[in-house]
Amino acid sequence: MDALAADFAAELDRQDELAPFRDEFVSAEPGLIYLDGNSLGRLPRRAAERVRAAVEDEWGRRLIRGWNEGWFTAARRLGAQIAGLIGAGADDVIVSDSTSVNFFKLAAAALAARPGRRVIVTDDLNFPSDLYLLQGVARLLNQGHTLRVVHSPDGLSVPLEALAAAVQPDTALVALSHVAYRSGFLYDLPAVTALTQAAGALMLWDLSHSAGAVPVDLAAANVDLAVGCTYKYLNGGPGAPAYLYVRGDWQAELLNPIWGWFGQRDQFAMAPDYAPAPGLERFLVGTPPVLSLTAIEAGVELVRAAGLERLRAKSVRLSQYLLTLWQAWLEPLGVTLNSPADPARRGSHVALGHPDGWRINRALIESMHVIPDFRPPDSIRLGLAPLYTSFADVHEALRRFRQVLAEGRHAAYPAGRPAVT
Amino acid sequence: MDALAADFAAELDRQDELAPFRDEFVSAEPGLIYLDGNSLGRLPRRAAERVRAAVEDEWGRRLIRGWNEGWFTAARRLGAQIAGLIGAGADDVIVSDSTSVNFFKLAAAALAARPGRRVIVTDDLNFPSDLYLLQGVARLLNQGHTLRVVHSPDGLSVPLEALAAAVQPDTALVALSHVAYRSGFLYDLPAVTALTQAAGALMLWDLSHSAGAVPVDLAAANVDLAVGCTYKYLNGGPGAPAYLYVRGDWQAELLNPIWGWFGQRDQFAMAPDYAPAPGLERFLVGTPPVLSLTAIEAGVELVRAAGLERLRAKSVRLSQYLLTLWQAWLEPLGVTLNSPADPARRGSHVALGHPDGWRINRALIESMHVIPDFRPPDSIRLGLAPLYTSFADVHEALRRFRQVLAEGRHAAYPAGRPAVT
Repeated sequence: MDALAADFAAELDRQDELAPFRDEFVSAEPGLIYLDGNSLGRLPRRAAERVRAAVEDEWGRRLIRGWNEGWFTAARRLGAQIAGLIGAGADDVIVSDSTSVNFFKLAAAALAARPGRRVIVTDDLNFPSDLYLLQGVARLLNQGHTLRVVHSPDGLSVPLEALAAAVQPDTALVALSHVAYRSGFLYDLPAVTALTQAAGALMLWDLSHSAGAVPVDLAAANVDLAVGCTYKYLNGGPGAPAYLYVRGDWQAELLNPIWGWFGQRDQFAMAPDYAPAPGLERFLVGTPPVLSLTAIEAGVELVRAAGLERLRAKSVRLSQYLLTLWQAWLEPLGVTLNSPADPARRGSHVALGHPDGWRINRALIESMHVIPDFRPPDSIRLGLAPLYTSFADVHEALRRFRQVLAEGRHAAYPAGRPAVT
Repeated sequence: MDALAADFAAELDRQDELAPFRDEFVSAEPGLIYLDGNSLGRLPRRAAERVRAAVEDEWGRRLIRGWNEGWFTAARRLGAQIAGLIGAGADDVIVSDSTSVNFFKLAAAALAARPGRRVIVTDDLNFPSDLYLLQGVARLLNQGHTLRVVHSPDGLSVPLEALAAAVQPDTALVALSHVAYRSGFLYDLPAVTALTQAAGALMLWDLSHSAGAVPVDLAAANVDLAVGCTYKYLNGGPGAPAYLYVRGDWQAELLNPIWGWFGQRDQFAMAPDYAPAPGLERFLVGTPPVLSLTAIEAGVELVRAAGLERLRAKSVRLSQYLLTLWQAWLEPLGVTLNSPADPARRGSHVALGHPDGWRINRALIESMHVIPDFRPPDSIRLGLAPLYTSFADVHEALRRFRQVLAEGRHAAYPAGRPAVT
């Protein structure tokens, strides 16, 4: 059978044991190929019903009683469910705030745990928000912390040796994205954690681009700290609250730098002085946004039902299939692979590069009914969400991508994203 | 007519020009008297439809495109609407995070603006989370900041002179709740702001218990900073994101201590170094919880439609009526007034005290279909939300309160709230 033919994709879909999960998601626009589940996952059908119930039955009918009927415990309950997806104990993950706020909390807590050390190691593939937060924490603490930013020689990946060389006895914290937001580069999490801890530093992983698509075993790797978002492969909804992980033995020692009442021991005693909750609740701050919190559960349940080994296996098949089509159809037209070629070193999205990447991305969205996204300077990211992305989606998306280039459709769009002034 | 008769309440409701607003809210449980709108406002009918649309039409159908079709601008748009309720310019209020996280951001920013001063003035009526956050900021900055906590001599209010005496040339920041969470004490916001600024300190108001029920004019009083929640009198839904206000001339000078990508100038340039957005966006941090954000608008619109002068006038009428009934029915049974008696010094809830307050509160909720709430050591708070609380509600609630005491119904409940261990 011709690997480039649509029939071949259809056959792969027939063989896909995860194919039935596609029907668990709302697919409201026929013909749309959605390849941005790495940015915002699709709406699980059950999530719509859960949110409706939270609005009408809980807020509308139960009113303030909702707090004692599930809202107060939602952060823990959802945390325990997510824990099962990242190899953490049920008591070691809690849902709270945004990924950025959680990252701030854990980075500041980690630096306080290594008072004699002044270096934070990260890399230049890291998500900008994580870099900004580290810069801000260093400035706020005013103790002379500096960032040591490991440079990616090819813009796609960071050699383990380069990272190892940067982690020194002066290093308090190593903070990295497990899967890099642009290239999709996948770190060897156990190896990096081990070399970090061998140097006496704490390890903080951002799992935003891996949880739900790439198996993670925090406990096996003895990871100190982690954060992640719920709105990508976990399908928790736009801006859904994030989670944080603190290894059990750190929970009584580390302090949240933001002392809010949800982090207080015996919160409703309303005592005048802060006393942190004994466990992970100390990393909560204020009242959580219940409706957005409620939306998370359905997507997480689907990921759990599918199982991460199966999801990862499909994700690799999808991305390898995408590379086959890229090589045949797009590489000859000047499109580069801006992700690692080795699937073992890649998460669940593939970045393709072109000097006109911005225009091509707009043409795909606005004239071809394909939704990827664009990341500067030249990457079009194609997110493969194994719960609902089909091989036929990949085939048709790359066919349309080729058509854009062949017909020069992208020339109709402005040359670059407008700068914000 | 007998002021204690149910007919009298019915007549007051007939004369109430805001009475039609009651129908704008879901009232799912007949006979329930809800007096906890100062903690969680009722569900506006229109909010249910807005959230449904955000889930099904925006997330479900538009997917990632939702960000460019309203989600990115929601923080600003909602901020501008709330600004109109607190006397702020449309560009001076933005919705973000929780009240506690916003309070942390503004408190840290304010202290950095007064580097030579080391005292934070607050009072012991303040909401515990605000006290904890100030304690935490002082510890985190590690610059020797201390709290000067003005003591309320009667537990109900703070004399202006006591506050004035505490604000000295060493004072960097004065942080207070405009309306105290327990007693409902209402500060003279312009006078406190003026004396604070006369001493060279910055003024940070927490408006959580006033916005939507008590007129506030931040601009007229030249207030520096403010925060507030949206889920009380604004009816934004459980844990709905909070807002923050920064006076225009401070916006380019103050820095958010949490440097996230939503606070970055030209966020999607994905530059490696933090450069704060020129305006109020610099006080954003991470991706906002869109569904909870969406729920806010309907409640704010209702407050705007009713108008704060009318809302305040009705609130005062409701609370004065409540005091009449308290005096006749409850004071003889040992129930104290735990709020200021002067309506000019009181927000929109009334606290009634009793040594068995915890049990009475449980009896009201569980056997009398009345929902107030309890705050230690002995206060039962009765929230009067002028958009939907009726005079008949007040009459019937106090009648049932009297019945609990007369029949000793509270004796069936445990003597105090269980401590969290």
